[in-house]
Amino acid sequence: MHVFPIFVLNITPISNIMRQRNIIALVLAVLVLLPSHVWAQFNWPYTIQDGTIVTEVPVRPGGQQSALGLAVEKIPVVRVAFVGLGMRGPDAVERWTHIPGIEVKALCDHERDRAEACQEILRKASMPAADVYYGEDGYKDLCRRNDIDLVYIATDWLHHYLIAREALEHGHHVAIEVPSAMNMTEIWSLINLSESKRLHVMMLENCCYDFFELNSLYMAQRGLLGEVIYVQGAYRHELSPYWDEYWKRGADDKLGWRLDYNSKFRGDVYPTHGLGPIAQVLNLHRGDRMRTLVAMDTRSFNGQELFKARTGEYCPDFKNGDHTTTLISTEKGKVIEIHHNVMTPQPYNRMYQLTGTKGFVNKYPVEGFALATEVMKKAGVNVSKDYTGHSYLNKEDTEALLQRFTSPLVKRYGEEAKEVGGHGGMDFIMDSRLVYCLQNGLPLDIDVYDLAEWCCLAELGSLSMNNGNKPVQVPDFTRGEWSRFRGYRHAWAKPEDEAATRAAAMEFTKQLKAKGAKYWEKAAGAAD
Amino acid sequence: MHVFPIFVLNITPISNIMRQRNIIALVLAVLVLLPSHVWAQFNWPYTIQDGTIVTEVPVRPGGQQSALGLAVEKIPVVRVAFVGLGMRGPDAVERWTHIPGIEVKALCDHERDRAEACQEILRKASMPAADVYYGEDGYKDLCRRNDIDLVYIATDWLHHYLIAREALEHGHHVAIEVPSAMNMTEIWSLINLSESKRLHVMMLENCCYDFFELNSLYMAQRGLLGEVIYVQGAYRHELSPYWDEYWKRGADDKLGWRLDYNSKFRGDVYPTHGLGPIAQVLNLHRGDRMRTLVAMDTRSFNGQELFKARTGEYCPDFKNGDHTTTLISTEKGKVIEIHHNVMTPQPYNRMYQLTGTKGFVNKYPVEGFALATEVMKKAGVNVSKDYTGHSYLNKEDTEALLQRFTSPLVKRYGEEAKEVGGHGGMDFIMDSRLVYCLQNGLPLDIDVYDLAEWCCLAELGSLSMNNGNKPVQVPDFTRGEWSRFRGYRHAWAKPEDEAATRAAAMEFTKQLKAKGAKYWEKAAGAAD
Repeated sequence: MHVFPIFVLNITPISNIMRQRNIIALVLAVLVLLPSHVWAQFNWPYTIQDGTIVTEVPVRPGGQQSALGLAVEKIPVVRVAFVGLGMRGPDAVERWTHIPGIEVKALCDHERDRAEACQEILRKASMPAADVYYGEDGYKDLCRRNDIDLVYIATDWLHHYLIAREALEHGHHVAIEVPSAMNMTEIWSLINLSESKRLHVMMLENCCYDFFELNSLYMAQRGLLGEVIYVQGAYRHELSPYWDEYWKRGADDKLGWRLDYNSKFRGDVYPTHGLGPIAQVLNLHRGDRMRTLVAMDTRSFNGQELFKARTGEYCPDFKNGDHTTTLISTEKGKVIEIHHNVMTPQPYNRMYQLTGTKGFVNKYPVEGFALATEVMKKAGVNVSKDYTGHSYLNKEDTEALLQRFTSPLVKRYGEEAKEVGGHGGMDFIMDSRLVYCLQNGLPLDIDVYDLAEWCCLAELGSLSMNNGNKPVQVPDFTRGEWSRFRGYRHAWAKPEDEAATRAAAMEFTKQLKAKGAKYWEKAAGAAD
Repeated sequence: MHVFPIFVLNITPISNIMRQRNIIALVLAVLVLLPSHVWAQFNWPYTIQDGTIVTEVPVRPGGQQSALGLAVEKIPVVRVAFVGLGMRGPDAVERWTHIPGIEVKALCDHERDRAEACQEILRKASMPAADVYYGEDGYKDLCRRNDIDLVYIATDWLHHYLIAREALEHGHHVAIEVPSAMNMTEIWSLINLSESKRLHVMMLENCCYDFFELNSLYMAQRGLLGEVIYVQGAYRHELSPYWDEYWKRGADDKLGWRLDYNSKFRGDVYPTHGLGPIAQVLNLHRGDRMRTLVAMDTRSFNGQELFKARTGEYCPDFKNGDHTTTLISTEKGKVIEIHHNVMTPQPYNRMYQLTGTKGFVNKYPVEGFALATEVMKKAGVNVSKDYTGHSYLNKEDTEALLQRFTSPLVKRYGEEAKEVGGHGGMDFIMDSRLVYCLQNGLPLDIDVYDLAEWCCLAELGSLSMNNGNKPVQVPDFTRGEWSRFRGYRHAWAKPEDEAATRAAAMEFTKQLKAKGAKYWEKAAGAAD
């Protein structure tokens, strides 16, 4: 039996699993004091039972309830603070200025000028300037405010969890860029925080909101594909044009944080773009759950070369394989396949594919639906020719299908999303839904268990591969409630409630913009 | 430790592994006498060592040599006997009539009329009639002939091995349709037969000869893709239009042999179309080798439905999952991914894909090459625009690439292959290469170790899945010689030798056709 020491990043919520481990805890208390770069590997406790890796599942503390279906009081105006304004943050701020009933209260980045630069976005939107925070601990000061509802986190990966924890402990909901948790320690901590604090922890998985994925999900939910039994997803995107875009700690940092992270961690460290949309199709923790995971990777070929090219040093132990594949079976006998490759040249590919007992959907390199005429007719779609399900529908029939099966989210937000932009519009649909659910007091589209399931591939896959590709038991992150809800659903408010909420939101924004216009007028006057 | 009993289908060649198992052998000797449908599961001996499944590797009998690179004396005229003339056999006979220097000596099928029907093909080609064999034991009589060089086997799966063994024991080379061996017992037996008898055992994997795959292999061999690190292949082909085409044992047989086989065997029972072409790219047992395999499948959804629809009976234990995926890592740190799905509707898809450190190739649903301009220029290909490797080449540049990198096999046989046909021509290239290598005394393109590596996925994958997706050690079928050759190569004769061989072959066929014409004239006269 192997037991590896656990890192207590968040002492309180996961302390229950440590009760019978006082000696280990003592040792760890010392380790916690070491600087972060020392804990460069995964370290959640596990055992190997009859050849299968079983990770520890912390007992839910007494009195703590599940956060499944968590809904909180309506938040008519969502007061948001943005942390991390380097790459994706500024675009998020810009998108939010198009959403009625929000107020940007704070802007925070490690670098002051990055935070300040976002005031310009607010000015353009006629919204008042926000308070600016910066430096290594800027987010801590920000989290102490009691006039914010949501902290929107778009930093480098290593800070996602630290900032989220800080925000949650201070009573704020969080929305965290992907991957929101880098390891099992962070995952279980976020689950316990969401459950104990009754706060939303949403992962900002924008690919769940892409048009093709939303429409396909809707078809699957309406039974058009029969039972969806095999799903594929991926992040296959060679990042050579981007490595220099990632924040560096200083002039000596030749790698930037992302490449540095890849050099230190084996496993699919960026699984959620592929996994998010297909997990929703499979109704994970809404009637089905992940059961067994196995992972396999190539060795590092280009990764190692890249390291050498950038640092001049040979890195024999570059951890992340150039291509990593994870297979996961579910309780209901279905299989999920996820790929990660940011190292070798290839067309961008999220491999989104649904294999159903009655139909087939594939996104890359060409979007296509393969459905039999019979299936289409039953669903009320008239087609121009006879299909057996062995070929993709032609353009005309694809349009007829989409006409009948447009996702309600695409109907609601699609047009505006294309105008506002953000990865073709999906980012805007995501943000709009987040605000919609908060304003209407609904459960969010993505909860902390989704976050857990989608992020666990990194550490669990690494465990599989570091142990000769052994199978890993995927824990039930809901701790027993995965079949309480039946089927994944986007929550909607009653039309009359929704209309009232929206009217109030529009009115608030109108007033805010009037105030903002005056603010910037005055600021310009002062500058003259 | 689990040890499962082995089935001795072929007592002699694998008897060495049984030496210390006399008691088991005695028990098995009885079982061998039972009818074939009783041994409906895999049964090669294995142990589980530290969570990894390790199958038994029989010691090579003393004095027996490897068949790696096996070449035999030139066979100027290849005298062939066809066994199995139901589905693919007649097309093979037809194709062979277009190849110079061959003579069809015998035609054999379980059903007499099927064998007789192929005489018509010979008549049309002005080739003399062949001897006809039929019935359950027809192939045994056929194998006793000493005027044949090659037995070409295109029966149902269960007979592939039985007929091949009979032929090899009587001193004939064999070419066997896919999959040539259904389990580890048959695989090791064929290896020992090829090694001990110094006879060719070629698997008729036609997909290795498709135009796109041949050209891509050639590019990979010329280094255009850098190091190829991740390869995908599949057989995804819903067979509902074909289930009734497979031979049935009688009126009571509602399933036909193929569906019956799928109902009884878990695992990727048809892996070679996907695996063959990519295995050649990875140089398996020519400098690299499969090391670890894991497999995962969905449960049977449509398979079970199909069983019920055809038999009226519910089959709770339908063994073959609707979709099976196998991952295999190699000694050099590369990964192979193979899919099998014959149950759910989707466009035909062999998933042929090569991910290289410098380039990317993908066949389905759209053929494409993604290469950087820099890589293309170095290889002497002028392109019309600037490529970074993140998009597929346009039509014009794809043509320029193919102009420069047309496989020598396509150059040699491509035009004629398209005329003769057989899955778009690939079958004819395959047969032509087989005859070419035999006539010129060269090693064949596909040897018994390829057969072993490509067919082992069925039983090894089943072992993985029946043991909770445990990793399986893939045996070194060459028993220590996998790195003796460096790189996969198609063998070619010296131009002058080749020309002489061909001239003799043409002359033989000319005379044979003259003789054949007379034969059929006389036969027609006798019939009047």
